[in-house]
Amino acid sequence: MVNRKILITGAGGFTGWHACQYFLNNGYHVVGLVRKKRFNKDLPNYEERECDLTDEFSVYDAIKAVKPDYILHTAGKNDVKESWEKPAEYVTVNVLATVHLLEAVRKVKNNGKILVIGSALEFDPSGLPNQPYGLTKTFQSLVAKSWETLFHLPIMIAKPTNLIGPGPSNGFCSLIAEKIALAEKDCLAEPVLIDDLTQERDFLDVRDAVRAYELILLKGKIGEVYPIGTGCYRTLMNVIDSYQSLTTVPVPVHIKANKHDLGIDKGKGRMDLTNIRALGWHPGYPFLSSLSDILTYYRNKG
Amino acid sequence: MVNRKILITGAGGFTGWHACQYFLNNGYHVVGLVRKKRFNKDLPNYEERECDLTDEFSVYDAIKAVKPDYILHTAGKNDVKESWEKPAEYVTVNVLATVHLLEAVRKVKNNGKILVIGSALEFDPSGLPNQPYGLTKTFQSLVAKSWETLFHLPIMIAKPTNLIGPGPSNGFCSLIAEKIALAEKDCLAEPVLIDDLTQERDFLDVRDAVRAYELILLKGKIGEVYPIGTGCYRTLMNVIDSYQSLTTVPVPVHIKANKHDLGIDKGKGRMDLTNIRALGWHPGYPFLSSLSDILTYYRNKG
Repeated sequence: MVNRKILITGAGGFTGWHACQYFLNNGYHVVGLVRKKRFNKDLPNYEERECDLTDEFSVYDAIKAVKPDYILHTAGKNDVKESWEKPAEYVTVNVLATVHLLEAVRKVKNNGKILVIGSALEFDPSGLPNQPYGLTKTFQSLVAKSWETLFHLPIMIAKPTNLIGPGPSNGFCSLIAEKIALAEKDCLAEPVLIDDLTQERDFLDVRDAVRAYELILLKGKIGEVYPIGTGCYRTLMNVIDSYQSLTTVPVPVHIKANKHDLGIDKGKGRMDLTNIRALGWHPGYPFLSSLSDILTYYRNKG
Repeated sequence: MVNRKILITGAGGFTGWHACQYFLNNGYHVVGLVRKKRFNKDLPNYEERECDLTDEFSVYDAIKAVKPDYILHTAGKNDVKESWEKPAEYVTVNVLATVHLLEAVRKVKNNGKILVIGSALEFDPSGLPNQPYGLTKTFQSLVAKSWETLFHLPIMIAKPTNLIGPGPSNGFCSLIAEKIALAEKDCLAEPVLIDDLTQERDFLDVRDAVRAYELILLKGKIGEVYPIGTGCYRTLMNVIDSYQSLTTVPVPVHIKANKHDLGIDKGKGRMDLTNIRALGWHPGYPFLSSLSDILTYYRNKG
């Protein structure tokens, strides 16, 4: 039997690489698109392919060559702070690249189901945006919805909350773990500056998220939007306390006055998890076990 | 006294060139941005400048060199039918170009007020899009609103309905007039194919629209959206009848079965003209006089 073939964009990224590993372990043939090959990942059933998603011909060639049964679009930029400085780059990479991907699928007439990864930080377009990153993710989801509606492509949308887990990430939990690992080695670590410890977020293990992505690709309803999270909101203070239970050094954080609000809602607008739960999905990694794995990753990083 | 300086994007286009003429006649120094200079427009107080709005550096250089008191952003693609074939191009030209323009203003710290020209064909983003052109204009307006909200640029938005008037245009009224002028010269003119004569539209003379644009730039409220139209909806049948009263040849049209709905709402969602009327604006060109001027343009075109 021929393996089902999945194309994963952003395969060099945090979520993308976790997704590659997950789908490989579950018997898929995985083609990972990366902007630039960094080293040979010599794994059975894995191919890595260079592709610049902001170049429409590069994307077209990739889809035409691969003809995937499934497409998981994880590529994109996701640093809220950076998006304030380089909003045009975020529009190009998060919006235009998605347009190129879906246009390539349309032109090649590829039939495989497509899952576009949006974000829980999208804003309601009838209101006002709170930050550029969320704006571009809102656009990306509207593009996905539009290509499904107007051009009848088999697209679904996942909107995960804050993804955490081992591996290179610019997220809050990774940042703290990296500092702890340095402090444990007696390295001088600049403390992490935190604006507001009462900020609440829903932290979900990336490995739980990619399991949800497979379920959606296999059993999801075309055109549907799937918010994904644990449903449990934690303050940043709670994250610090949890890490403190995993180490003997003081967690190196420094609380500063709240000068620059990045525009992240503080636990407002809780997600409706009905759709993903209807597919039988529930998160599997307890929060402390995710943090422990992240810490292990940085302790071993050397 | 130094003239106020206005930068007009899309100066080679239908609306853009009418705007250039209007602002020149009203004592402004006008800098017209065009993709490619076609011929020398040797007019006092007029400068033409090549600029590729899809190239962020080209736009940045233009804003830095011109430092306009006002910016009128008319550039963009507006052919609904073409947008079904080349949606990626419409995203690039209508959305990304607007991002580059507003980013250039932000980086140069140019203080001049900005009027972004949206469209009455935008869709409500909480619903479903009906065609790609409208989608990209919805994105463009969301970008304008966002750069005003997030980066505090002095932006306003105009949403004109179908603009008509003398000059090269791909609009319905121009198409008919061109065929009439050919028929009057005994040239064999393929009749215009019309899907549905009962379709209703609000036709506004472009010269009335650019007068509204000046009013908004001078007296409008930052962040406000200004729908612009006559408030009077006409069927395409009414347009044909009106043209018939201006010529002795039969208006060359052919009614075909409605095969391909372009996704233009048939007079649904009438515009709220309160904001523009509050500035004291009312349309000045009667419909028949606009049609007559369009016909004269094509009769003289040779």
